[in-house]
Amino acid sequence: MPSMSLPAYMDDLGRAARAAATTMAAASTAAKNTALLALARRLREAGPALADANARDLAGAADLSGPLRDRLKLDAKTLATVAEGCEQIAAMPDPIGEITGVKRRPTGISVGQMRVPLGVFGMIYESRPNVTIEAASLAIKSGNACILRGGSEAIHSNLALAQLVAASLEEAGLPRAAVQLVNTTDRAAVGLLISQPQWVDVIIPRGGKGLIERISAEAKVPVIKHLDGNCHSYVDEFVDLDLAVKVVDNAKTQKYSPCNATESLLVHAAQAAAFLPRIAAVFKAKGVEMRGCLRTLALVPGAVAAVEEDWSTEYLAPIISIKVVDSLDEAIAHINRYGSHHTDAILTTNHVSAMRFLREVDSASVMVNASTRFADGFEYGLGAEIGISTDKFHARGPVGLEGLTSMKWVVLGQGEVRG
Amino acid sequence: MPSMSLPAYMDDLGRAARAAATTMAAASTAAKNTALLALARRLREAGPALADANARDLAGAADLSGPLRDRLKLDAKTLATVAEGCEQIAAMPDPIGEITGVKRRPTGISVGQMRVPLGVFGMIYESRPNVTIEAASLAIKSGNACILRGGSEAIHSNLALAQLVAASLEEAGLPRAAVQLVNTTDRAAVGLLISQPQWVDVIIPRGGKGLIERISAEAKVPVIKHLDGNCHSYVDEFVDLDLAVKVVDNAKTQKYSPCNATESLLVHAAQAAAFLPRIAAVFKAKGVEMRGCLRTLALVPGAVAAVEEDWSTEYLAPIISIKVVDSLDEAIAHINRYGSHHTDAILTTNHVSAMRFLREVDSASVMVNASTRFADGFEYGLGAEIGISTDKFHARGPVGLEGLTSMKWVVLGQGEVRG
Repeated sequence: MPSMSLPAYMDDLGRAARAAATTMAAASTAAKNTALLALARRLREAGPALADANARDLAGAADLSGPLRDRLKLDAKTLATVAEGCEQIAAMPDPIGEITGVKRRPTGISVGQMRVPLGVFGMIYESRPNVTIEAASLAIKSGNACILRGGSEAIHSNLALAQLVAASLEEAGLPRAAVQLVNTTDRAAVGLLISQPQWVDVIIPRGGKGLIERISAEAKVPVIKHLDGNCHSYVDEFVDLDLAVKVVDNAKTQKYSPCNATESLLVHAAQAAAFLPRIAAVFKAKGVEMRGCLRTLALVPGAVAAVEEDWSTEYLAPIISIKVVDSLDEAIAHINRYGSHHTDAILTTNHVSAMRFLREVDSASVMVNASTRFADGFEYGLGAEIGISTDKFHARGPVGLEGLTSMKWVVLGQGEVRG
Repeated sequence: MPSMSLPAYMDDLGRAARAAATTMAAASTAAKNTALLALARRLREAGPALADANARDLAGAADLSGPLRDRLKLDAKTLATVAEGCEQIAAMPDPIGEITGVKRRPTGISVGQMRVPLGVFGMIYESRPNVTIEAASLAIKSGNACILRGGSEAIHSNLALAQLVAASLEEAGLPRAAVQLVNTTDRAAVGLLISQPQWVDVIIPRGGKGLIERISAEAKVPVIKHLDGNCHSYVDEFVDLDLAVKVVDNAKTQKYSPCNATESLLVHAAQAAAFLPRIAAVFKAKGVEMRGCLRTLALVPGAVAAVEEDWSTEYLAPIISIKVVDSLDEAIAHINRYGSHHTDAILTTNHVSAMRFLREVDSASVMVNASTRFADGFEYGLGAEIGISTDKFHARGPVGLEGLTSMKWVVLGQGEVRG
């Protein structure tokens, strides 16, 4: 960090980002793709300088737990993955400049909408250097500028990566300030970054729920926020039991830590006796703790009694809450009350049940006969994911390139005036 | 207002709105249209009770200025207009439930998006009873619930109108609480309304810039806000002068008070000598004060010197600032720096100039060869307008029914699981 006060430094970053955003908004698709492909090449060629920086971070983070340490590590495989990600984003259509829905109005003017970048986004994330490249590549393709604030344990890796990004931008004739990394581990930088509406249009935090709630409460700009994922799978009255066992098993046990893993299982009373013993056998074999309602306990000997808090808990662990419900209405009401509006699925063979569930469950992703684990930008075909939104405003669910854009109105006339 | 504390009352309104929103989200198009047509009928038949209530408001607002008094008045013509508005909204396609972009993914799942209501919106507005009906009808059609806080001078009119809305909802089998009016003139109600993220999803304020800035700063929920409209018309180097005179005249003088009136005129140096005397003659004849740069002063004898502040001023009056620029680049840079990102137009015959202006001017509405006065929900074909947004996030420019909705993800599977 240069020798100036932190507020002056953050203000400089913001001003530079705003200026770069103007250039990026008008940048050609070719220039943006050139930068992305240059970045992929530089990541593959990175070699010793990057390895040294990452080794310094790893040495300084000796007390990090295993999984956090793994996330911090930038090995050849990680670099190959992020480089490939850059190439995939380069191959995607440019979202910017798309004009849609142009209609001639009775007055003679034609009115439509044009997709444009949001401007500048600020990203606050944990010590995962790969996120630096993901955010940078999404910013470049979407014609935005960004200011990145990664976790302090990854500062040397991030600075080395930011150098590669800047060089790649320069190689493509684009402004280096389109992607800037906050070059200080001072925590006060976060408070400043989220309080600059004149420079920053939106903040995207990634991290624990506490951090995101604090940022949302204090930010002076909009926040695309991802809170918890208390996801449900509901086994309907009309159901293919084999399919339901397979899907619910996957939704819960394929991985325990992701936000889109199922945390709560609802079963229609008419299927409880047939379904619960079968899925319980699967869970038991995999060591999943079952916390059930009274009717569940009667059907699943190994289950323990759920308490009220279980219905709203995101375990991120081999634990699942289970409730028998008497109707689709009860299932929908339960999900809307206790869920986190993230991802919920129905297992059913009935069209009316499926359509009602899709429409009435108030969640970012609603699914029929599929594992909740599919709620993911890559699985949805967004090509990349800057985050997942649990808000309804602007972007909902997995956020890809489009979530970093907005639509402005375009009016094409031939000298029309208003009467 | 019932005999309870204001916080308890506002909490009750919020809870009732949230419950009504769930029902409204699942309401049939037929029921929503029945309510809208019933409301139109009731407005036309309103008669003495409504007239009495409005007379009480007018009597209590004897010191209001003429235009504000006119806005408060609910005469037969105003009622016919708002009734017609309800019928127009009933005739529009239902935005809710639309499913778009469904694509099959390599895993076998099909992924698309479904349009759903935002939930509950709060509307804060001045003493214009017609806004009560506009907001109510947009809420009904978009499947949202709303809590309305109108200006205190209109409280009796608004209460009478809210009765008509509630009766119409009931007639259609929809919950009366889908549209609730805050039944108190206590200003503290606004502070409570904007601080209930558990009940209210978005706030839409209408009124002076100071009010909107205060609400935006204090709100704990997203705000669709309309700040100032410092709109520009730019006369390009390549231009049809007759067309430019006609359009700029209309953009400035057709009405002085709307936010989409042109406040600043930019003229390419190559056209200044030909264009400025002609438009100046029009402005002079209509009594429009001209505040120009030095080069303008040399060409327009009646103009006075503009000061720096003029470039960023929204006059809402027969005053216009005028600047001669040397290039399209300078025009775009000036607009992006001094404008308010509301509406800006280029007058040009050159395709490259037009396309660059559309893409690079960072405003909610960008126009080619049309009067800035067209920036309006009705003119754009939205059928109705809940407000105009000067933000980039979520909704930009005129906000109609779609601005009150969001897109959730829909996944249709046949038992797919994640590998």
